[in-house]
Amino acid sequence: MSTTADSSPHDWQRPFVPHDCGAIAGSGSGPLAHLSFAVKDIFDIAGHVTGCGNPDWLAGHAPAAETAPVVLQLLEAGADMIGKTITEELAYSLQGENYHYGTPVNPACPDRIPGGSSSGSASAVASGDADIALGSDTGGSVRLPAALCGIFGFRPSHGRVSLGGVMPLAPSFDTVGWFTREANLLRRVGEILLGPDAAEVQASRLYLMADGFELADEALREALVPSLAALSALLGAPAVVRIGDNEGGLTALMLRFRTLQAREIWTQHGPWIETARPRFGPEIAARFDWARRMAGEAPRDEALRREHFSLRMARLLAGGGVLVLPSAPSIAPKKGLELAASQGFRDRTLSLTCVAGMARLPQVSLPVAEVDGCPVGLSLVMARGLDMALLGLAERLMAALD
Amino acid sequence: MSTTADSSPHDWQRPFVPHDCGAIAGSGSGPLAHLSFAVKDIFDIAGHVTGCGNPDWLAGHAPAAETAPVVLQLLEAGADMIGKTITEELAYSLQGENYHYGTPVNPACPDRIPGGSSSGSASAVASGDADIALGSDTGGSVRLPAALCGIFGFRPSHGRVSLGGVMPLAPSFDTVGWFTREANLLRRVGEILLGPDAAEVQASRLYLMADGFELADEALREALVPSLAALSALLGAPAVVRIGDNEGGLTALMLRFRTLQAREIWTQHGPWIETARPRFGPEIAARFDWARRMAGEAPRDEALRREHFSLRMARLLAGGGVLVLPSAPSIAPKKGLELAASQGFRDRTLSLTCVAGMARLPQVSLPVAEVDGCPVGLSLVMARGLDMALLGLAERLMAALD
Repeated sequence: MSTTADSSPHDWQRPFVPHDCGAIAGSGSGPLAHLSFAVKDIFDIAGHVTGCGNPDWLAGHAPAAETAPVVLQLLEAGADMIGKTITEELAYSLQGENYHYGTPVNPACPDRIPGGSSSGSASAVASGDADIALGSDTGGSVRLPAALCGIFGFRPSHGRVSLGGVMPLAPSFDTVGWFTREANLLRRVGEILLGPDAAEVQASRLYLMADGFELADEALREALVPSLAALSALLGAPAVVRIGDNEGGLTALMLRFRTLQAREIWTQHGPWIETARPRFGPEIAARFDWARRMAGEAPRDEALRREHFSLRMARLLAGGGVLVLPSAPSIAPKKGLELAASQGFRDRTLSLTCVAGMARLPQVSLPVAEVDGCPVGLSLVMARGLDMALLGLAERLMAALD
Repeated sequence: MSTTADSSPHDWQRPFVPHDCGAIAGSGSGPLAHLSFAVKDIFDIAGHVTGCGNPDWLAGHAPAAETAPVVLQLLEAGADMIGKTITEELAYSLQGENYHYGTPVNPACPDRIPGGSSSGSASAVASGDADIALGSDTGGSVRLPAALCGIFGFRPSHGRVSLGGVMPLAPSFDTVGWFTREANLLRRVGEILLGPDAAEVQASRLYLMADGFELADEALREALVPSLAALSALLGAPAVVRIGDNEGGLTALMLRFRTLQAREIWTQHGPWIETARPRFGPEIAARFDWARRMAGEAPRDEALRREHFSLRMARLLAGGGVLVLPSAPSIAPKKGLELAASQGFRDRTLSLTCVAGMARLPQVSLPVAEVDGCPVGLSLVMARGLDMALLGLAERLMAALD
């Protein structure tokens, strides 16, 4: 049941899509002048078809009329767009193994997955092909590949960055995120795409997510100890919290996320899938089939519980609270994982990433450690709207670790 | 070309929809116990068809599987849902004259329009039928009817309140808003639906929107002087600003808003309209026809300019800035307005309301004055995410005016 049976486990697959999608010179001046950026192939570029990771989608859609505003903003800030990157099919997976276009290399550990769905964008930045890459993050699609590839990744507060000209997946969770190799550049891109926070708030107190650390591999937890110490030196000793509720813990939260997400995904893409009958890779086909069935089931109280959870997180983090958790439960799994193992990895990952997703919070993943020579990411979450404060904290922490 | 030729100009049209949509008792206890609320008929109630203001939509859609989370949140807070209210067809108008279901009465001046599209919700609160009503605000559909009916209306930061189970119109502008007769209750509903702001920020400085006041009727401007004085007593003398840019001013901003909105609306509803061929009232039919044509035109730089404008507003208002403007350019027009006059009213209104819409900012409309016995609303706008600070300021201003 491997999805990459026909690709060598050590191939060095380039991160860019094979079809033409234009390269665009930036304005030449501005705060991002002389930097390059790549764009996940779910962002529109005027005059080119947005491929969304599936050849039947590519063949069946017209060229975009308009370029996504976030792309225009980076061009205007001086950066050059060098190409579009491979994405999971319709951005609905976390592994980064596209059945049709291959698995963009994870340069830090080439026999392992890069993580997805913004796999090509992470790969392009990690390999040095681009300084910046745009991705999208609905369930972890920027945070996870950033962690697995050993670079910085940021998911903003839901609704803060324009989703114009970006393929929707599950609109109440969708965000535009970005990757860089440096914390300083991560924040500078934020200055272009986010503007200032509504209030200047300093990160002031730390919460360690106990149930998040518990579900990570022990070696990974140990590898994160030095950065937790540095963080405590900045913000004081952490209070230990459990984010999962008493009824089912993080697993219940993760299942509610998957249910809500699947329903939105089927609403968004079900009609096209049923009409166009596209060829999907086997895991993605099964995923959409599951989404179709979930959409047909009677909803329970997932949506209301999401709002409860959002309010609980807003109260916890108001006024400068910072939640710290591992970005991923382990280092990158080997490519071509068996289905059961890949599902296990996904469920553990989503149990971490769904916290910010459900509560619409910003999260940054920082490459702070290694296990067996593979990158490990630490994640920080702050209250909604404090995106620039969070990016500033990330920069301070990296300086402290240097 | 009147849309209400068959209704008497002085009828006392009830605000509720004629079809059954269930009344639901609240939890009986909680911060909103013993209060009643009404819901615009674009919010889902499980087991009932959401009518969206059009009989063909009502006939052609299945009952909702799930109740909108915001409705559940109010029920859980103890309030009783007493019924669903008349909306403009697919929420795409600001007048409040539904061709099929009639014009919900504006109790403050029954020969005048209530404003829309959340016309029935505003009417239900203004007439005392409900203590609270939920509406939606894409282009002004809570702020305008609140002003015209003489009640409080709030549009939150875009993305802060769940849009689950709410008919989309133009997703990048859509918000859930609410009406009350008291500033205190407006804020208490905010405590249920918003939770705390990310940072506790006090409103600290005032900006008077000169180009906003200039396009309002002189009598209305004069009527707002006492509340501007009270506001200055709280926040200090205002700085005078112009929000429209040098190229075309507010009119250009408004036209960009209309273009972006029309494109999103046609993406959202065009397929259904072309397939189902619903009967619309003449003005609404013309509106959708215009949206269809706009969606076919080549986009220019509207989307990028929107992001520029958002950043400019974020910088202006960061750290406690408050923009003050009239909620509407005049008192409510008479019912059955000629088309040209209704378009003029709409364009002037949108020139005011598009500021918060384009920049995704929260705005509150306060019933602070009268002209010719008809209500006049004053609006306050703060930075994105400072919704609770804004509702707190509204309460303090009303106390100062008492």
